[in-house]
Parts: sequence; C-alpha cells; structure tokens
Amino acid sequence: MRKYLAEFFGTFMLVFLGTGAVTVAKGNVLTIGLAFGLAITISAYAFGGISGGHFNPAVTTAMLVNGRIKGKDAAWYIVSQLVGATVAAIIMKIFVGGLGLPTNQLGQTDFPKISMGLAFLVEVIATFLFLMVILNVTSKDHGSDAFAGLTIGVTLSLLVIVALNLTGASLNPARSFGPALLAGGSGLSHLWLYIVAPEVGAVLAAFVARFMGSED
Amino acid sequence: MRKYLAEFFGTFMLVFLGTGAVTVAKGNVLTIGLAFGLAITISAYAFGGISGGHFNPAVTTAMLVNGRIKGKDAAWYIVSQLVGATVAAIIMKIFVGGLGLPTNQLGQTDFPKISMGLAFLVEVIATFLFLMVILNVTSKDHGSDAFAGLTIGVTLSLLVIVALNLTGASLNPARSFGPALLAGGSGLSHLWLYIVAPEVGAVLAAFVARFMGSED
Amino acid sequence: MRKYLAEFFGTFMLVFLGTGAVTVAKGNVLTIGLAFGLAITISAYAFGGISGGHFNPAVTTAMLVNGRIKGKDAAWYIVSQLVGATVAAIIMKIFVGGLGLPTNQLGQTDFPKISMGLAFLVEVIATFLFLMVILNVTSKDHGSDAFAGLTIGVTLSLLVIVALNLTGASLNPARSFGPALLAGGSGLSHLWLYIVAPEVGAVLAAFVARFMGSED
Amino acid sequence: MRKYLAEFFGTFMLVFLGTGAVTVAKGNVLTIGLAFGLAITISAYAFGGISGGHFNPAVTTAMLVNGRIKGKDAAWYIVSQLVGATVAAIIMKIFVGGLGLPTNQLGQTDFPKISMGLAFLVEVIATFLFLMVILNVTSKDHGSDAFAGLTIGVTLSLLVIVALNLTGASLNPARSFGPALLAGGSGLSHLWLYIVAPEVGAVLAAFVARFMGSED
Repeated sequence: MRKYLAEFFGTFMLVFLGTGAVTVAKGNVLTIGLAFGLAITISAYAFGGISGGHFNPAVTTAMLVNGRIKGKDAAWYIVSQLVGATVAAIIMKIFVGGLGLPTNQLGQTDFPKISMGLAFLVEVIATFLFLMVILNVTSKDHGSDAFAGLTIGVTLSLLVIVALNLTGASLNPARSFGPALLAGGSGLSHLWLYIVAPEVGAVLAAFVARFMGSED
Repeated sequence: MRKYLAEFFGTFMLVFLGTGAVTVAKGNVLTIGLAFGLAITISAYAFGGISGGHFNPAVTTAMLVNGRIKGKDAAWYIVSQLVGATVAAIIMKIFVGGLGLPTNQLGQTDFPKISMGLAFLVEVIATFLFLMVILNVTSKDHGSDAFAGLTIGVTLSLLVIVALNLTGASLNPARSFGPALLAGGSGLSHLWLYIVAPEVGAVLAAFVARFMGSED
Repeated sequence: MRKYLAEFFGTFMLVFLGTGAVTVAKGNVLTIGLAFGLAITISAYAFGGISGGHFNPAVTTAMLVNGRIKGKDAAWYIVSQLVGATVAAIIMKIFVGGLGLPTNQLGQTDFPKISMGLAFLVEVIATFLFLMVILNVTSKDHGSDAFAGLTIGVTLSLLVIVALNLTGASLNPARSFGPALLAGGSGLSHLWLYIVAPEVGAVLAAFVARFMGSED
Repeated sequence: MRKYLAEFFGTFMLVFLGTGAVTVAKGNVLTIGLAFGLAITISAYAFGGISGGHFNPAVTTAMLVNGRIKGKDAAWYIVSQLVGATVAAIIMKIFVGGLGLPTNQLGQTDFPKISMGLAFLVEVIATFLFLMVILNVTSKDHGSDAFAGLTIGVTLSLLVIVALNLTGASLNPARSFGPALLAGGSGLSHLWLYIVAPEVGAVLAAFVARFMGSED
C-alpha cells in the first residue's frame, strides 16, 4: 500500500510541478525542463526508498521486462501513477481557472508543428534514451547509486528541453494521461501516441541496457 | 543557544536571498525559485548540523506533531526564525531604498490575482507537498540522508515556481512575517493567511507522512 | 565491446542534447551551456562505470598521454565517439527538417565573429582548463571521486557559456565532427581547427596536471 | 608549490568564467550568478584537495584568524590568487578585444547606482554571510564535508544574484583586483573598497562562526 502511495505522490509531483511551470508560471524552456526533470529527482530521493521511484508506466514496463518488478505490483504501480497524474491535473485546472486563464490549456502534450510519424519517432527515441540512463545508472554492476536520483532527473530535464517544441516532451504515458483527460481536445485524441511510443522506447531500452550489462 | 542562532541565520538567508532576487535583482521566475529554494539547501548543509535545519515555523510544527522536537525548543526555534526573517527584511529595505526603488515593495507575499479562498488552498497544498518531501527524505526508514538538503531546497524551488503567480509562494509563516512587517499594506493585512494556511498544510503532511512510515 | 558502446552513447547524448538545445529549443546561453555540460554529467554517472566516461577524443588523448588508457583502446574509443556524434547529428537533422527549419543549421561549431588565430587560442585555452579539472578531480591523490561527474559537467557548462559567442565552444573534436559532417559549409571547412586546437589543449593539460600530482 | 598552483588555477577559474559570463556571454543575472558561484564549486572539487580551496584573500584571512592556515602560507596563497585573477583578466581582455567590444569593460566591480557607504555595507554583509557558510559547512563538528564544494559555490551564486546590481558582487579582493587592473577607470579607483570591505566581513564571520562551534 505504501509503495502505491509513493508512486501516486511521485507522479503527482511530476505533473503538478511540470505542468504548473508551463501554465501558471509561463516559464521558458529551461524552467519547464528543470521543473519536469527535478520533480523526478526530488521524488526519487523522498519516495524512491519506498517504491523504487518509477513514477512512469514506461519505466515500470522496462523494469517488468528486465525482471526487476513483479507483474501484479507493476499493474498497481501503473494505476497509482495514472491516478496521481489525474489528481494533479484536476488541481492544476482549479489554479488555472482561478487565474482566469483558459482551462483547456493545462500543459497537455501535443504535436502541432510536426507530423504524427515524426512525433512517434521523437517520443520513442527520447524515452529510449531516458530508460538507457535509468537502467544503467541504477545498475549494480556499473551504476552510481547515490547520484541516480540526480542523474535521472537531469536527464529528463535535458530531454524535455530538446523535445518540448516537437511533442511537448512526454516520455511518460501517465504524464500525458492526466492533463489530456482534463483538457480534452487534440491532446486527448492524440493520447494513444503518448501511451504507445514511450512504451516502445522503454522496451527497446530494456533489451539494449541488458546487453550492456545493466542487469549483471 | 547555538541551535537558535542556526535557525536565525538559516531563516535570514532564506528571506535575504529570496526577496533580494525579487527586489534588487528583478530575477525571472526561475531565478526567484532557485534563490528561495537553494537558500534552504545551503543553510541545511551549513547550519542544519547544529539545529536540524527547520528555518520555517510550519516545519517546526510538523516536527513537533511527529515528536521530532520538544515543545520548549520549538517555541524558541520559531522566535529565532521570526527574528531572522525580520532582520533580513530590515537590511533588504535599506538596499532597496539605496537603489531608489519603492520601499513598500520588499518581496512580501500577497495574492492580487486570485480569491482569498484559492490563495488559502494554494498555500495549504504547496506546504503539504513541501513537508511530504521533507518528512520522507529525512526518514530513517527510507530517506536519503546525504541528499536531503539538496532535495528539500529543490522542492521549494519548484513549488515557488508554480505558486509565485498565485500567492507569492510563501509556504513559511516567517518568510511572510518579516517582509510584511517592513512593507506594510495588504501584505501585512493578509499575513494571517500566510501563517494559518502553511501550518494547516504542515500538520496534514505530518499525519500522511507518518502513515507512509516516515517515523519508523 | 560494452566500453565502446558506452562511449558511443555518451557522445551521442552530448551532441543530441547540446545541439538540440541550440536548434530545436532555441535556448539562451545558459540553457545551451547546461545542456552540453550536464549531458556529460548524466553520461558519466550512467555509462562512466563501463568505459571511464571520456566521450571526447581530446579527453582520450590526455588519458593516453598520462598512461590511463592503452593505445588500442584509445583508437576504438575515438571511433565510437565519432560514430555517436554522427548518429546524433543525423537524428537532429531529421528533427530540424521536420520543424521546417534550415537543415544546414545543426548546431555545428564555427567562429564568424573572430579571427582564426583567436578561435584557435580560445579552443586551446578552454580545452586546457576542461582537462585540468578532469585530470585533477579524478586524481586518486587529491580528487573528489563521487562528485567527479557533476564537477566535469558543470565545468563544461561554464566554459560553453564563455566560449559560445567566440567559437561555438567545442572543446571536443567529436562534438564538432558529427554536426559539421551533416551541415557542411564553413563549419566543415573549419573542422580541422576543432580537431587540432582541443588536442593541443588536452596534451598541455596532461603535462601540467601531472606536475600537480594528478597521477600520484 | 602545488598548493599555490591550485590557488592560482581556482582563482583564475573564478575570474575567467565569472567575468566571461558578463562580458563575452552577456548573460542575465542568473547566468552570471551561476558562473561565479559554480566556478568555485568545480575548483573546490578539482583543486581543493591540494590547497583547501580558498581562491579568495578574504577566505584566506578568515582561515588565518581561526588558525586553519599558517601566516607564511597565507601570504603565498594571496599572491597566487592575485596572479591568477590578473592572468584571467589579461586573457579576457584579449577575448573582448577580439570581439570588437570595449576593452575597458572587463566585468570589473563598481557601484554606479548606490553611495560608497552602502557599497561598503553590502560587501561587508555579503562576505560575512559567505564566510559564515564556508566556516560552518567545513566544520568538523557539524559540517557537511562531501557537499561543502557545492554548498559554498551555490552560496556565492545566490549572493552574486542579490548584490550584482548594488556593487557588482565581489566578496573577494582578488576577483576585483585582476579586472580592475586591466580595465582601469573607477573600478580601479574604487578597488580599495573591494579589498577592505570583504576583509572586514570575513574577520567578523571568523569570530561569529567560532562562537557557533565551527572550530570545535
């Protein structure tokens, strides 16, 4: 139970702090990148000791593929992540509305400037790289345990900076799910892409990282 | 005595560096968020070894609720924090005046864009999340001792980024007290909200974090 | 084999995240500096445990001069780095093209504002300073092992901030090689400078750092 | 000898990276603050293991007052720091001139917006706070050894952000010495203030920090 609560809070933090930097703070690309990434860093150090600190269904999938989590736990992790992201989006909608800003702009992910094919590719590549870092930095064989939370969060920050103008930089089905549900529109109709592409990238990374010895 | 001096200096740093980034530096939302948050990080590593590094009456209250500090000590901690915040505001008023800027703008907290009810909710939620991280990252059961100072400060940075446009992002009765006292105006008449709401959020977090095993 | 893959991925990360911050994100000088520098930090913590974390032919050369790597390994390291940088540039060209931006602007290095002599001097000095930090912070005698990844990355960030307006801040023949190959133009005709100058700076640093006891 | 070279390089880094962020990069207040502060962080982790990492005559003075360094060593430390700062300013003058920018603007410190009395007060207070953090975070009694380099650098970053618009934020006689010598003008005629005020602040901090148990 505590594990699922930890996943709930970590994913809540990611969506609350990340989309808040977009909507309420109107931050620049660096501010937005740091908000999403460092939300993972702080949640990893605060709640990771309880649950392992996934906060992302694609991460949970990669951990399942490499046998680091059991199937039943993985399912409940993903449910907790989706609920955390949705509660964060509900609160963000209240904040945005209270400021008199449009409540269909909640920091949801979308790709208005590029083709669907390229958007899919971007999310696959970015999530693949994200998981390559996660799986290697947490490796018992060659990882950096103490700095894993910092490394993983900063990696997400940099990937968000690069991918923000392309796809809104999801890399995380739960992060796209909550805001899309509350905002509706094309963010919701494109939600499938932000579920499938990160999962594909994560599974690819699980195999490549295993080949690099991350599971030794 | 040394403990109270440590709380004085840490809270002084928070108000001096945070409101200085607002008034003298006219920093953007990222600069302001980093100034408030990292002021806690550096004070935690420099002075936290003496006092535990609260620098915030709401934090002291949560520690009291969970039995991590005694009542008499808690009272003197809060007095030291209020004095530290006030001295910082006095110095900031001298700096601001010396630059020819209006001395009723000292980085005090207020909520000109939203309703009082929403402002209360924002401060409760933000302080609740801040304390959830503090109590879990310092947990003997599942915390990250070495990285606690960094985690707590970065958490405050991100919460300030999100809440700045809503309430000025206090999360700390002392941080609001000093500047409001020196600046007067609606920052002072609204001071009660910045005392009550963070305390409510902190007490809520104390109970939830205990349920998550932070006191085991 | 795993070592070469680690060098491939680390150099890929540097070029992908760094030039992406320039082209796709259109970041300011701080964003660009942090993207290049922290790409090294995350790669050092994630992949450095496998290969030592060079991600730069000039670093590999300095390590060879000071006997920290064997000649055959050094050659394969450099090949892996060049391939990683080139693959990153290929993907960045696809992203840039997909956004409708000019595909001859891929974040390649060049020096339109200064003379060739000064550009050479800037790259020698910046790479010399970069290697001075790398060789000393990884020294068994007086280094800071746990913080080496953070130190090295932040050093690159600050050097990029200073040198960006002068030479594009390469300090790394592979980082210049990939984007120049894909972008062509004067970035490609000036590529020799970004190969020779960093190597000169790195060899100078290898001697000075040895004198300071980095190899004791 | 190695100790003096370490002090030379650390102070060189501070002036080269900090004033480079001002002149060549034309960074905003956050960029400039991070450049000065994190230059100390990286130098502390890379060279601090050799010399203790002062990089500042005011720090050396405080260490002398509290008996952490001998008089003869302190004198040579200060000489090395002044030489390092001057060499950095010479190189920066070449870079600035090569870009066609005015070579009397080298990031020297001055106080055009405030009175001399307030400028003196600002430098005393800021250096006092800087040394309070340095002396406590490096305390054997209650410090945070591993994070000292990060804490000290971030403290300088935040103090620079606050003091930049007031005095240029020196806190360091060597940092003011080198650029003032090369730039001339009122930065040079005001140099005495940037030597005396930081030394006063540092000596005050040495006494207060000793009272807080930093030397136990």
